[in-house]
Amino acid sequence: MMHWSFVALLLTILTSSQGILTTLSQTNGKYLYDYATVPFLAEVFKLLVSGVFLWREYKTSPSTTKMTTEWKSVRLFPIPSIIYLIHNNVQFATLTYVDTSTYQIMGNLKIVTTGILFRLFLKRKLSNLQWMAIVLLAVGTTTSQVKGCGEASCDSLFSAPIQGYMLGILSACLSALAGVYTEFLMKKNNDSLYWQNVQLYTFGSIFNMARLIMDDFRGGFEKGPWWQRLFIGYSITTWMVVLNLGSTGLLVSWLMKYADNIVKVYATSMAMLLTTLLSVYLFSFNPTLQLFLGIIICMMSLHMYFAPPNKLVDLPETVKAAPESLKEISVERQTDS
Amino acid sequence: MMHWSFVALLLTILTSSQGILTTLSQTNGKYLYDYATVPFLAEVFKLLVSGVFLWREYKTSPSTTKMTTEWKSVRLFPIPSIIYLIHNNVQFATLTYVDTSTYQIMGNLKIVTTGILFRLFLKRKLSNLQWMAIVLLAVGTTTSQVKGCGEASCDSLFSAPIQGYMLGILSACLSALAGVYTEFLMKKNNDSLYWQNVQLYTFGSIFNMARLIMDDFRGGFEKGPWWQRLFIGYSITTWMVVLNLGSTGLLVSWLMKYADNIVKVYATSMAMLLTTLLSVYLFSFNPTLQLFLGIIICMMSLHMYFAPPNKLVDLPETVKAAPESLKEISVERQTDS
Repeated sequence: MMHWSFVALLLTILTSSQGILTTLSQTNGKYLYDYATVPFLAEVFKLLVSGVFLWREYKTSPSTTKMTTEWKSVRLFPIPSIIYLIHNNVQFATLTYVDTSTYQIMGNLKIVTTGILFRLFLKRKLSNLQWMAIVLLAVGTTTSQVKGCGEASCDSLFSAPIQGYMLGILSACLSALAGVYTEFLMKKNNDSLYWQNVQLYTFGSIFNMARLIMDDFRGGFEKGPWWQRLFIGYSITTWMVVLNLGSTGLLVSWLMKYADNIVKVYATSMAMLLTTLLSVYLFSFNPTLQLFLGIIICMMSLHMYFAPPNKLVDLPETVKAAPESLKEISVERQTDS
Repeated sequence: MMHWSFVALLLTILTSSQGILTTLSQTNGKYLYDYATVPFLAEVFKLLVSGVFLWREYKTSPSTTKMTTEWKSVRLFPIPSIIYLIHNNVQFATLTYVDTSTYQIMGNLKIVTTGILFRLFLKRKLSNLQWMAIVLLAVGTTTSQVKGCGEASCDSLFSAPIQGYMLGILSACLSALAGVYTEFLMKKNNDSLYWQNVQLYTFGSIFNMARLIMDDFRGGFEKGPWWQRLFIGYSITTWMVVLNLGSTGLLVSWLMKYADNIVKVYATSMAMLLTTLLSVYLFSFNPTLQLFLGIIICMMSLHMYFAPPNKLVDLPETVKAAPESLKEISVERQTDS
């Protein structure tokens, strides 16, 4: 079994490549392929990989490969897809009220809403310091996105209508809910990870296909049915975007089962900063002070959240010196009462 | 005896009024008085107040009013003034390489250098969390100063010559050194605070007067000797600036004796944010996202630094439950060895 921090690091690297690969897959700043087909193919890729792994696991040891096939359990697996579908529509509605950069800034709210739903739904306790770390992570990612001096478009963040902000908050809640619900699904029993994945991605593929079909109807089949658009304009880079998106999905799934949502949130936030940092070199953007500050804040937050408490604060000397004796006391106390 | 947190709060409020009063003391955006006379009069004010308090203390109880009058001790008191004098010249040199907004941003480094000199010279230990809090305070104040989208002058922070940055670091070290040295002076013996103040401000007045005289020579006495310029153009607001500057100096002195440099750094940093926040209302500035983020970061930092560790992290249950038993163990262990 891999350590979760290794998986989180891999997720950070792959997620940060995602933005760069997507940019590289454009030709003269335009997509020659239909971008909506990418998530669909990524779902199919994840489904195939999970299917193969499940088959191998089952072949090796049929007795230990746990699979709950009752409808009562299976029917829960489309729920994350349904939440994402609602989320996409809320996102669309939000963008009619606010500009994309304000929407991007508000997106950082999902770090905080994930913490709240993590506490409320999964009943996981966080120390005050961990709460502060989560708020700082959101503040840090926001800081890195503050529009710099001399940037072309200069929309004010505080001038959108109130509906825009309400929808932004709803969007952050839905995004967090999908994550927290997936974690609940993955941890509710000790079914094989691959069996759980197969269920998740079967529904994921169906919902993504439904979206492509809806796009066809909305567009009046002008570009032909979706299956004809599927590989048109695909380059090697486009396929790398698909494989990368699929791989990050599989890593997130693993983290939901063996680690948790907060680990995922840290990995994706760090990836966002890494993408911005890499863009400075790859696309010769100007490094901004706010990027630099954002990175420091997020690093502090990471350390605050994950470092063991005794590395952060000075505990009373006796506590550190006599851990064995401490256990004895608590036993004594229990027998006394 | 007042609690240090009350004194720190008072210092925050008075320091934040300082910037606003100074702006209000201008007439059509210009000073009708010589601003260099303000710190001199503030030193004289502090000297008079401390003198009166010392006299009263001595009259009430001559035996408990401790005053070390040996030259070996007195000769240390001009040192903070000398450091400030060097600092002013370094500041002047720095500004020939960098613009004022870059200088202001670099000024936040003194928060970190104060922490370092506090550790090195005063041998005060800080926990990892407190170090992180200090870095975050510097990051938070810097964040609030990030130049917003659409601001008039748009100088890049990363384009100044290297000498500018080196001098900026030197400036931050000197500023921290003056603070740390003053704390050392105030705490090195239990002399009366007022006697220590009288010594500090006597030298402070002398050095400020010397500066005015030097200005006269530099300017070729065009505006006449300094004592003729002393009250010219002074309004009620100018006098309030003098009284306010003097009062904040006295509060800092108190904090150096009964609290420490870190408390002072927090008070003045919070004051900076409060000034910016008040300016939004008083001078109808636009509130920026970076101000809002900076305030959150600094509030987190404040809580991280000053909150008791057991309010921040979850200590093992037994530690909280059985403090008395713990002491017994450590005693037993000592007798064993």
